[in-house]
Amino acid sequence: MSAITNTRIVLAARPQGEPKASDFRIEQAPLPLPARGQVLLRNRWLSLDPYMRGRMNEGRSYAPPVVLGEVMDGGTVSEVVESAHADWKPGDLVLAHGGWQTHVLVDGDALRRRLDPDDPPPSTALGVYGMPGFTAYAGLHEIGRPAAGETVVVAAAAGPVGATVAQLAKLHGARVVAIAGGQAKTTWLRGELGVDVALDHRATDFAARLQAAVPEGIDVYFENVGGHVSDAVLPLLNDYARVPVCGLVAHYNDAAPPPGPDRVPALLATILTRRITVRGFLQSDFLSLYPEFLRQMGQWLRQGKVKYREDVIEGLENAPAGLAGLLRGENFGKRVVKL
Amino acid sequence: MSAITNTRIVLAARPQGEPKASDFRIEQAPLPLPARGQVLLRNRWLSLDPYMRGRMNEGRSYAPPVVLGEVMDGGTVSEVVESAHADWKPGDLVLAHGGWQTHVLVDGDALRRRLDPDDPPPSTALGVYGMPGFTAYAGLHEIGRPAAGETVVVAAAAGPVGATVAQLAKLHGARVVAIAGGQAKTTWLRGELGVDVALDHRATDFAARLQAAVPEGIDVYFENVGGHVSDAVLPLLNDYARVPVCGLVAHYNDAAPPPGPDRVPALLATILTRRITVRGFLQSDFLSLYPEFLRQMGQWLRQGKVKYREDVIEGLENAPAGLAGLLRGENFGKRVVKL
Repeated sequence: MSAITNTRIVLAARPQGEPKASDFRIEQAPLPLPARGQVLLRNRWLSLDPYMRGRMNEGRSYAPPVVLGEVMDGGTVSEVVESAHADWKPGDLVLAHGGWQTHVLVDGDALRRRLDPDDPPPSTALGVYGMPGFTAYAGLHEIGRPAAGETVVVAAAAGPVGATVAQLAKLHGARVVAIAGGQAKTTWLRGELGVDVALDHRATDFAARLQAAVPEGIDVYFENVGGHVSDAVLPLLNDYARVPVCGLVAHYNDAAPPPGPDRVPALLATILTRRITVRGFLQSDFLSLYPEFLRQMGQWLRQGKVKYREDVIEGLENAPAGLAGLLRGENFGKRVVKL
Repeated sequence: MSAITNTRIVLAARPQGEPKASDFRIEQAPLPLPARGQVLLRNRWLSLDPYMRGRMNEGRSYAPPVVLGEVMDGGTVSEVVESAHADWKPGDLVLAHGGWQTHVLVDGDALRRRLDPDDPPPSTALGVYGMPGFTAYAGLHEIGRPAAGETVVVAAAAGPVGATVAQLAKLHGARVVAIAGGQAKTTWLRGELGVDVALDHRATDFAARLQAAVPEGIDVYFENVGGHVSDAVLPLLNDYARVPVCGLVAHYNDAAPPPGPDRVPALLATILTRRITVRGFLQSDFLSLYPEFLRQMGQWLRQGKVKYREDVIEGLENAPAGLAGLLRGENFGKRVVKL
């Protein structure tokens, strides 16, 4: 064997609004065997995350956009197939940035994390025990900082970030109001995760229900959606409230700003008069906390103090539709693609 | 003497947009002599501040609104006329919350600060050496935290908060871009305060000039105006920029939100992708720093390291027009009324 055939999904066009099938193209291409220091990986699990929509646009974001014709970026759990690096041997499972493809050739020095057999199941390294879980952990500990008895509101609470925020806030002794779309999710949030109140944001009287659910106002709002959920939350924020901003999934498909009036002055006035902190962050801003997160979260998962749910899509070819559905909020738990 | 006659300005109507003469009423009323523990003050200087406009509206703000028919609130430098409190004697100069009137009867225990003869001039206790100066100090030290070499942009820089921010940021070793309305102010900012760049926000090409003035982007934006200045600043903020929000004077007279589109999603996306901190504050949130502020600022003023300018209005009856002008940005320096 001197090369393998890699199947990959490339960005064919920059989407207008919701990504559609024709914005992607599936390709096959040969991949050489590893040169010295390299490792050949077979991707086993591909993470689908809302941030991927931003990478499909041109323009300034966290990171440069995916180049047209290039493979879509993405975190993976991958298995070492061939290694020309002393640290890695065939059969090792690793956390990688393998992308939307079956195989990838990487620099062995750049691999981040080996997944050990006594870790939680490998796919969780893309969810509760990986980037989304760490996003929840870092944002809550470093920005939200809920005190016992304070009220924490978290949106997209059936997703991997929101569900982890909800549970960590309960571990802090906070009162937790979790928001999600649909009754199946709110039932799970109440029954399985034990939040104090779970609300369906699709209810026509959602804003009134939220107000009734927070008689003492809101001290921490973990912002990962924006849109009408955010609109209902802002008037209820208390003095000195903290708003960690880690996502705005309701807006990722927006092709143009919504109609007026322009509510920026009103938002700034709310921030001013109530002395609110609104702070954007990425989990990568807090990497020094990562070892502590792995230790603590590993323990919580083993003890059953933190639970999680996965939403598995079968087959690489279904990743594009899986991402589009994720952006519509149809996932129930962490959406991963099983390759 | 068993009573004195107090002349006072009361709120006659809640303004729609810019406050006008008929929103106020001047009255005379007798004031009794101090009962035990009380002190009778004659107000010598009255502070005019943008926050006063917010207090004229109904609805939630920092503090309850001024009641219709009641005297307008305001900080004063006042002289003790009669005292029935052991700590105060006639002739003492004090910082008080004396309001828009010639005299006031206060609880001697509630008086905040005696002004000593070797302090800076008494009126500065309403400006650089008082609440506005402390607002600058607290917001810059606790939220803005400019590092040497970083770029700080401050609006309303010819006002007492902005001018102090500009000078303190220079003392931190930052590069300072100061924004004000009109050439007289920008000339003063450059020549007298020594800022690196001073820009007139009334210039038609203001946004382009601002962009040219910050080749390395903006690390700290001290927000005290909002409006088109804020609009020009936001696209230039760097990753991890800090935005202390202590005022939005461009909007205080707004009777309705501005027309669309709604730029809230875009603002939140900027906060997210650049990991910006936007934090509202009041100087009173940081009162533990006040003694340190008085000591440091007193020293800086004596050494000439911090300069200030006052904009004096003569006569209580001119306070309403003085406040309206302040909200239009016509003051050049700290606006005080000399009684």
